[in-house]
Amino acid sequence: MSGHFADDLTAAITDKHAPVCVGLDPSYDRLPVSIREKYGDDRVGAIREFCTEVIQTVAPIVPAVKPQIAYFEIYQAAGIELYFDMIALARTAGLMIIGDIKRGDIGSTAQAYARGHVSGKNCPDAVTVNGYFGADGLEPFIEEGNADGRGIFVLVRTSNPSGATVQDFADASGKKLYQHMAEQVAALGQGSLGSSGYSRVGAVVGATYPEEARRLREMMPEQIFLVPGYGAQGASAADCATAFKLDGTGAIVNASRSVIYAFDKNPDIDWRQAIRQAAGNFATDVAAAVF
Amino acid sequence: MSGHFADDLTAAITDKHAPVCVGLDPSYDRLPVSIREKYGDDRVGAIREFCTEVIQTVAPIVPAVKPQIAYFEIYQAAGIELYFDMIALARTAGLMIIGDIKRGDIGSTAQAYARGHVSGKNCPDAVTVNGYFGADGLEPFIEEGNADGRGIFVLVRTSNPSGATVQDFADASGKKLYQHMAEQVAALGQGSLGSSGYSRVGAVVGATYPEEARRLREMMPEQIFLVPGYGAQGASAADCATAFKLDGTGAIVNASRSVIYAFDKNPDIDWRQAIRQAAGNFATDVAAAVF
Repeated sequence: MSGHFADDLTAAITDKHAPVCVGLDPSYDRLPVSIREKYGDDRVGAIREFCTEVIQTVAPIVPAVKPQIAYFEIYQAAGIELYFDMIALARTAGLMIIGDIKRGDIGSTAQAYARGHVSGKNCPDAVTVNGYFGADGLEPFIEEGNADGRGIFVLVRTSNPSGATVQDFADASGKKLYQHMAEQVAALGQGSLGSSGYSRVGAVVGATYPEEARRLREMMPEQIFLVPGYGAQGASAADCATAFKLDGTGAIVNASRSVIYAFDKNPDIDWRQAIRQAAGNFATDVAAAVF
Repeated sequence: MSGHFADDLTAAITDKHAPVCVGLDPSYDRLPVSIREKYGDDRVGAIREFCTEVIQTVAPIVPAVKPQIAYFEIYQAAGIELYFDMIALARTAGLMIIGDIKRGDIGSTAQAYARGHVSGKNCPDAVTVNGYFGADGLEPFIEEGNADGRGIFVLVRTSNPSGATVQDFADASGKKLYQHMAEQVAALGQGSLGSSGYSRVGAVVGATYPEEARRLREMMPEQIFLVPGYGAQGASAADCATAFKLDGTGAIVNASRSVIYAFDKNPDIDWRQAIRQAAGNFATDVAAAVF
């Protein structure tokens, strides 16, 4: 590990020939029946076993996992404990970890968030953040991550249907809010470039709008893109490919539900095997479109 | 309690003749020395005692408290346990509780957040949310709160210096992003009006821009405004008054640091007494400007 998130992630993607990340969005109702039966009322226990198995299953295949903290926060303190335990487990398994927390607030409060989610030794390698507060709500996340070279991904273009009602708001020149946000992210990231040429400040750019991703790729040459939308949200590997540079670097595609619940569509084999196949197919599919 | 957040908050404000809320932003380094010495390395214990004292001190004076979850998240699982314990304590003390969590994500993930922060019996009466994802990131918070009539405050205009770099982004007609957001919030809230005439969907409107608040007041007649920026952030009671309707309803002003750390500027009296005085002065100051 070089101690710079963008460099480490770029190297990890190359090592595994897999520009992809598996999202951990553990919804109790969707866990394998065998796990739910084993744990009875202990939902946190069931999710712990499920996530543990998913992490160990995908660790040889993908460079990173992205725990979605919302699914852990359902269980309040017990869920947060589990979230950090799963980060530790993923780190031991050799994975990089992107904590999908989407926090954002005024400067003093952002610093408090960053202390809890970025600067602790048990924190993920990078987190997602919301840029609605402008630069002084983002800088504390960068600064608190300096010592360990941790990264952030600022929400630029989200993958959900109604995102456009806010993010397509356009000025007189036709520039849209998400493009305005992209300019700010590019400026914010200039101070934290690694030897890879990428900044510790990345961007979330949904794959559900591939032409927009192509333009954003030009606007943010130093940002690594975290690309949601593949699989359950409808985007193909070709859609995702526009988020990458021509040399195949600069982005990581996430899939959550289509991988971790792959056993729903493949009930005749062991559920871990179904996840392993889905993770492998996901990595192969995106790699073929990108490399 | 009527079971409708806007009605209950409006009634509680009238009862106490105090359209104000005290923010709980407990930063360990700013706690009274006596508490820090008592607890030694047990920072969570120190913050627990401090928040307990603050809640009990302000409960007779103000209708609501606003715990800022970022300051609790510094301590990860232990902090989240404390956050919910303090909500329970505030409820027992007769206070309404606004959980300042500023969560926001795509619909399925927003629902997970809402289950953890809105629909549980131990959850606050309302939470703050971030609208960057548009309506489908907000609706789950409203729906999960239906059973208990819980509310949300959507970020419209924040009180921090760099907020304008994003929120002042304007279209060809001169309409700014925060006004565009205000229109969406007004539309979103139409389905959840209470007998007070206010919706369970409110808005965060910083007091640091009083003229903007006046215009937003017209654009969102059915929204209760949660107004940060008084005190430590520089806004006066007169600045805050523009967020209210002429009848004195429709807003609640928050102060955090200027109340809970009032002992810094008043070291000759007991620290709880300094907080009591500051909360009383805050309530009187805003009430005089509004009622």
